Amino acid sequence: MRIAVIGFGGVGKAFLELVHDKREVLEAEGINPVINYIVRSQGGIYNPQGIDIGDLLTFLKENQDITTYPQGGSKDISFERIMEEGDVDVVIEMTPTNLETAEPGLGFIRRSLEKGIHVVTANKGPILLAYKELYELAKNNGVQLGIGCTTGGALPSINSGVIDMAGSNITSIEGVLNGTTNFILEEMADKKIEYLEALKKAQDLGIAERDPSLDVEGWDTATKLLILTNVLMQEDKTLDDVDVQGIQSMTLADIEESLKYGKRYKLIGRSSLEDGQLKISVHPELVGPDNIFYNVNGKNKAVRYTSDTLGDLTIIGGASGVTPAAASILRDLINIHRGYSYIR
Amino acid sequence: MRIAVIGFGGVGKAFLELVHDKREVLEAEGINPVINYIVRSQGGIYNPQGIDIGDLLTFLKENQDITTYPQGGSKDISFERIMEEGDVDVVIEMTPTNLETAEPGLGFIRRSLEKGIHVVTANKGPILLAYKELYELAKNNGVQLGIGCTTGGALPSINSGVIDMAGSNITSIEGVLNGTTNFILEEMADKKIEYLEALKKAQDLGIAERDPSLDVEGWDTATKLLILTNVLMQEDKTLDDVDVQGIQSMTLADIEESLKYGKRYKLIGRSSLEDGQLKISVHPELVGPDNIFYNVNGKNKAVRYTSDTLGDLTIIGGASGVTPAAASILRDLINIHRGYSYIR
Repeated sequence: MRIAVIGFGGVGKAFLELVHDKREVLEAEGINPVINYIVRSQGGIYNPQGIDIGDLLTFLKENQDITTYPQGGSKDISFERIMEEGDVDVVIEMTPTNLETAEPGLGFIRRSLEKGIHVVTANKGPILLAYKELYELAKNNGVQLGIGCTTGGALPSINSGVIDMAGSNITSIEGVLNGTTNFILEEMADKKIEYLEALKKAQDLGIAERDPSLDVEGWDTATKLLILTNVLMQEDKTLDDVDVQGIQSMTLADIEESLKYGKRYKLIGRSSLEDGQLKISVHPELVGPDNIFYNVNGKNKAVRYTSDTLGDLTIIGGASGVTPAAASILRDLINIHRGYSYIR
Repeated sequence: MRIAVIGFGGVGKAFLELVHDKREVLEAEGINPVINYIVRSQGGIYNPQGIDIGDLLTFLKENQDITTYPQGGSKDISFERIMEEGDVDVVIEMTPTNLETAEPGLGFIRRSLEKGIHVVTANKGPILLAYKELYELAKNNGVQLGIGCTTGGALPSINSGVIDMAGSNITSIEGVLNGTTNFILEEMADKKIEYLEALKKAQDLGIAERDPSLDVEGWDTATKLLILTNVLMQEDKTLDDVDVQGIQSMTLADIEESLKYGKRYKLIGRSSLEDGQLKISVHPELVGPDNIFYNVNGKNKAVRYTSDTLGDLTIIGGASGVTPAAASILRDLINIHRGYSYIR
C-alpha cells in the first residue's frame, strides 16, 4: 500500500510512529505500508522506493525541517508531484482545517479521488462543506473516502453510525463531541477555578489551542455534529442551521450551583426531529448521574444514536491526543484494505 | 440475495417482519431479499421463487404450523433440501443454543460454509465451541460468518471490536452483557422486592425464560464474554476457564445496603491481564455514579474495551427483545452484502 501523507503536524508525526511501531499488526492484516511522500506547504520528502520511517524519525529528533532530510527531502516536493507521478494508492490528507473555504484540503481530496486514489482525511472543512460532492466523486472513481477522524478522532462515531446502525433509521444524534470543553468544564468543577484559569491550564497542557474560539464557542462541536447529521441522516445542513452556544460565559458560580444538585455541565450537540422538523443545537446542559453522558470525563467524547429497530446506541471513548487521532487514521486505512466500504 | 432461515422462533418471525418492513432500505443497499427456505425441526417451507413474506405473515396470524402453509409448506422440508438444491446465498442459523454439543446448529453452519454459503448466526453454542474451526472453514471457502447477534444482540460488541478497534491491541474486555440479570437487579432496587419476585416479573414479561438458570447463574454472560475474548484477544478459552458467580443469591438486603451508598449492583464479565495472566470472571459488582456501567439500565447491555492506541471504548445499548435481535441479524446481512468482511 503506497501512501502519501499531506500535511505534517503532530498527528502526522504520530501516524509515522504508529506505522513504524505497528508493522507486525499491519503485516498480519496483509498490509505493507510504503510511505513514499510526505508533503508540507513548504516542500517535503519523496522517495519512490518508500521513505525509511525509522531513519526519518531519528532525523526528526534533531531536525525540524523535513525538506533537509537527505533521502529525498526537497523544497520542490508538492502535491503536484503526486499527481504527476500517480504512484500512490492512498492519500492521507491532514492539512489545517478551514471551515470557510475548506482549502487547500478540498482541492487535494478532490483531485486525489478524481485520479482514482483512496483518501483518508482528518480535515473537517472539506467534509463539512462538500461531503456529497466528494462522496459521488469517490463512488464514480471506485475509491474510498475515510472520514472517521473528522468527528471525534478515536471515537468511532461515523463508522459506528454507518456500520453498527446498518438497516436502521437514525432518528436522533446527541453527543459530547469536543474533548477540550469537556476538560475545561471538569477542571472548573474539580479545582473550583474560573473559566479563564481552566482554559489557560488546557492551553498549557496542549489540550486547547492558542486561539481556542473554535472549541470553546461550540463551533467544533457544531461541525462534527453537522458531519454526523448530514452523513447519517442524509441531510444537507450548514453551520447556519445550528443554534450554537459555547462555554465561554460559564462561571465558577454556575458550576458550583450545579454541584449542589450533584450535576455536571456538558457541552452537548443534538440533532433531533421535533414535530417533523430537524432541530440542530449546541448548548451547555446540566446532566445528573442518571444521564448517559455523566461519565464522559476528561478528554473523552461520546455520541448517542436513537434508531427505529436497533434501539439506542451510546459510544464513549476516543481519548483526545495525537496518538489516538493517528490511530483513527490507521483504522480507516486498515478497514479500507479489508474491503469495508465507506462509499457504496 | 437468496436466504434460508433455519430455526423459526420469535427472532425468526421478527426477522421476516423486518425484511418485509425494510424493503426500501434494503433496495437502497442494492439488496433484493428472496427468502426461499424456512426450516424448523418438524418441516418447513420451500419456494424456489421466494416465499411471499407479506402473505406468510398474514397466514401466521391465524396459523402456528408453517408446514401447512399452502405455497410450499411441507413436513418433508429439512436442512438437507438446501444442501441438495444449493440454491441459497446466505443461511441464517437460529436454532436453539446448546452449550455442550452446539448441535444441531454447528452441523448446519459447518455444512453451509463447506458448500460456499455465507452464514449469519444468532447461536452462541457453535461460536463458543468451534469458532476457530468455523472461521478457517469460512476463509477457505471464501464466504462470511456473521456472529454479531451472539454477543449481545443489537449491541454491536463483536463488530465494534473487529472494526472500530482495528490496528489496536485490545488489553481488556469488560461488560454488562446480560439484559435479564440487569433487569432483575434494577427491579429489586426500584420496587424494593426480593430476587424471586423480580425474577417472576421478568418471566411474566418474557424477559427471563421459564428455566432462567443460564441467565441468572451467569453462564450467558460468561459465554458472550468468552466469544468476545477468543475472537478479539485471539484466545482459545472455555467455560472452565471462567470464574462465574451469578445473581441468584442476591437479597433485597444486599441491594438496600448498596442504595445507602448511592451504588447499584451490575453483573459484570471481565477479561483482563493480571501479571501477564489472562483472568476471566463474571461477578455481581457494586458500581457508583462515576462508573461507566452505572447507567446501563433496564434491558440494555454494555461492553468496554481498553486498547494500546485507541484508548478506551465503551458501547452501551442493544435493547433486549426479538426485534433488536432480528435487526442485528439484518445488520450482519447488510454488511456482508456491502463487502465488509468478518472473515479475512
